[in-house]
Amino acid sequence: MPEYSPLAGGAEGPRALRPLLDTVLDALAEGAAARCGPLPAGGPEPVRRRLEAALGDPLPAEGAGEGPALRALVTALAEGSADPADPHCAAHLHCPPLAVAAAADLAASVLNPSLDSWDQAPAASALEARTAAALAALVHPRGPAPEALVTSGATEANLLGTLLARERLGHRLRVICGASAHHSVHRAAWLLGLHPPTVLPTPGGVLDPAAAHEALDRLDRLDPAPGDPLPALVVATAGTTDSGAIDPLPALADTVAAHRTHRPAVLHVDAAYGGPLLFSPARRGLLAGLDRADSVALDLHKLGWQPVAAGLLTVPDAPALAPLAHRTDYLNAEDDTEAGLPDLLGRSLRTTRRPDVLKVAVTLAALGTSGLAALIDATCEAAAELAALVDAEPRLRLRARPGISTVLFRPAGATDAEVAALRRRLLEGGRAVLGRARLDGTLWLKATLLNPHVQPSDLAALVKLVLDQLDGPARPGPRPDQPEGSPT
Amino acid sequence: MPEYSPLAGGAEGPRALRPLLDTVLDALAEGAAARCGPLPAGGPEPVRRRLEAALGDPLPAEGAGEGPALRALVTALAEGSADPADPHCAAHLHCPPLAVAAAADLAASVLNPSLDSWDQAPAASALEARTAAALAALVHPRGPAPEALVTSGATEANLLGTLLARERLGHRLRVICGASAHHSVHRAAWLLGLHPPTVLPTPGGVLDPAAAHEALDRLDRLDPAPGDPLPALVVATAGTTDSGAIDPLPALADTVAAHRTHRPAVLHVDAAYGGPLLFSPARRGLLAGLDRADSVALDLHKLGWQPVAAGLLTVPDAPALAPLAHRTDYLNAEDDTEAGLPDLLGRSLRTTRRPDVLKVAVTLAALGTSGLAALIDATCEAAAELAALVDAEPRLRLRARPGISTVLFRPAGATDAEVAALRRRLLEGGRAVLGRARLDGTLWLKATLLNPHVQPSDLAALVKLVLDQLDGPARPGPRPDQPEGSPT
Repeated sequence: MPEYSPLAGGAEGPRALRPLLDTVLDALAEGAAARCGPLPAGGPEPVRRRLEAALGDPLPAEGAGEGPALRALVTALAEGSADPADPHCAAHLHCPPLAVAAAADLAASVLNPSLDSWDQAPAASALEARTAAALAALVHPRGPAPEALVTSGATEANLLGTLLARERLGHRLRVICGASAHHSVHRAAWLLGLHPPTVLPTPGGVLDPAAAHEALDRLDRLDPAPGDPLPALVVATAGTTDSGAIDPLPALADTVAAHRTHRPAVLHVDAAYGGPLLFSPARRGLLAGLDRADSVALDLHKLGWQPVAAGLLTVPDAPALAPLAHRTDYLNAEDDTEAGLPDLLGRSLRTTRRPDVLKVAVTLAALGTSGLAALIDATCEAAAELAALVDAEPRLRLRARPGISTVLFRPAGATDAEVAALRRRLLEGGRAVLGRARLDGTLWLKATLLNPHVQPSDLAALVKLVLDQLDGPARPGPRPDQPEGSPT
Repeated sequence: MPEYSPLAGGAEGPRALRPLLDTVLDALAEGAAARCGPLPAGGPEPVRRRLEAALGDPLPAEGAGEGPALRALVTALAEGSADPADPHCAAHLHCPPLAVAAAADLAASVLNPSLDSWDQAPAASALEARTAAALAALVHPRGPAPEALVTSGATEANLLGTLLARERLGHRLRVICGASAHHSVHRAAWLLGLHPPTVLPTPGGVLDPAAAHEALDRLDRLDPAPGDPLPALVVATAGTTDSGAIDPLPALADTVAAHRTHRPAVLHVDAAYGGPLLFSPARRGLLAGLDRADSVALDLHKLGWQPVAAGLLTVPDAPALAPLAHRTDYLNAEDDTEAGLPDLLGRSLRTTRRPDVLKVAVTLAALGTSGLAALIDATCEAAAELAALVDAEPRLRLRARPGISTVLFRPAGATDAEVAALRRRLLEGGRAVLGRARLDGTLWLKATLLNPHVQPSDLAALVKLVLDQLDGPARPGPRPDQPEGSPT
């Protein structure tokens, strides 16, 4: 038995873990100090070379021991991270986790409960049941029996929502979504063997209920026979990835309800980004109509400050999840279920499954919904402040006031190629991590604010970083032969 | 801004984390001491009540603060866990994680890289690329370009293997597997909209190549026309969930190859359990033929001592993964890819994705392959020892010598109902977590050994626990009207 392989669990585990965790914390601090910015400078190649130097042979015959291995690789990972805790790391829906959530997540790794059977997760399964139902009730306050499944993210939740629609309405299901819908809607239809989604243009950034109505009407032409209508799934978005726009949910729910009189139709809402606004009394009104959806995807690893993964699929009525029921003798034999052992296999498409709910439950207990609301409000206010700074700067153009916490802007008069190159220069210089969004044929810089600790001075410095790029010698001058926002 | 919400990342994160991690370790130790056994006694209801008492309102308006929330919920979770670090917790392929792996996993939670784009995971994506390719080369040493995708487990890896076959060979794909195959093969076919799998009986516990040959022959009758053969996917298993049996991989590879002359056919091997035997020079011979598979699923959260999740799908040639390629402007725009930013979206069906590879890479660096081999050999030897103890005990019947580390046995002369009830009594008493396996019409007790630290005295005590149940007053006497192993 190698001496360097103590277990994390049991009565002895905490003693073995303590020095290893000290090493991890030291390595995290060293790596962050060595990086000294939101991401490592130099672009992909230098990062890869440094990482591979720290790693050496990925499958060495002889081990280096626990401490040295942890120190080398965690330091290299921290030094080579794009750290969302840095105010200038703001490209994606990629949040800086709360310390309390990361600490709770350690307990999940140590105890390693697996949520596919009660005898692998006695307390963890009870915690998940309680917390998931409470979060579902937040989304569907008037649902007969709100229930939620914990997912690896909204991609899996969108897949589940589409799968539930397929199982309820049949394989002829037609999916209708806006151009602003997340790519995972398309991937779900592909995976499930469905017809590719009908994509409606979203010139205003949101799905137009009139366009959805027309698309549902157009299905008449495809119906195999009168009285044999094709079933439909309308997918709306509450917080698009590109701009944070929220589709008009009440009108879309009305549209689906109106068509239900003559066509089987359901509404799924991808609220991955916007869903947590429900915690904020000041902002939950933006989600009016969400409770009328047949299923909702949301992610607490975005506007909920959880380490990945913390996704949810919610439904207003638990029996809607019945198509996921699944039996296999070793996990949920009928006689065990009859004898009172909970049947958990229908709670996921996965089998072995980590209790991602633990960090969520601990965060809710630690901060309360008021604490989460304060973080959400602070983040949205920071985005409004950044938008105001951009708007006041004549060399920049703001696309619109932010709907949630996404600010889209671009240098006035720049071509799309220049916008894309500017973003890459900021990345390569290790200066800032900004995203990009192509909307209405124009490429925008995207700042997705998710750091509630961001200060006004950080925002001013971010604007200055972008302006410095415009002044820099490396920038090619504007080319008169290319109009602003031209595709390249 | 609430004062109790520091972030985990950045330069300040480690300072905020240190006292919280101390609280977690104290809570883990307290919870384990309070449980004082492999799982909490009393069955589901008392566990649920204690957990809910510790939780209180899952969505309180006001928070309790970080320390109190962590202490209450982590203690409750530890006290209510079935801890695989306890030698008498041996029901499932549910391993006790190594301390070094759990410590590394904390760094993933803190830094929160997301592997869907380079600008969210500069170093993590480089680490994944290097480690995944090395593990793939272990599985496919003669492959032209071995590659691996990191998955949430073998359920997702089996889904990916089936999806790749569908995309390569078409939606008419027929899946053929043994009765001993994992339930996730059936779920994958259902999810992907394929015809339900053809299930071949496995009376010897393994998939018979002659039976697979006949099943492929029988497809002739279903072919729509001569010269238009239905494509086929044969799924073999290297380490069944019920008994750890390994299908005859070389003969199955021969069978598939023989049919390929007139029918598109591929071989996927679910090596979730057995795959890590490749690390052991003494045992890798059991996996001869594995390298001939078109795709392989394996899990390092089983015989690799990782916290969940640590799954892999490997292929011998990277271009086989091309069907997963996917483009979306905000993550992998063509101009960004052309400018040198790695395109990562085709490495998973998920979008946001935690770097589960970190703990795997750190474990490999710390222990080396020889260290992992020592753990694997110790575990398999413990299973052989338990089998010998059972075999020497006249009141128990051993099913067979263990293939990997699963020992199936039952009280001599017991009915299936008595076997099932005995298992539940051990669970309810908080004494032992044993599994169950129904094989050849008989229900067996299943001890899946995955704890490399288990001692001979632990194994003797486990046998005694079972025997005590036979002597106990609560057991109904043998019923002469029910033959041994009768279905109930």
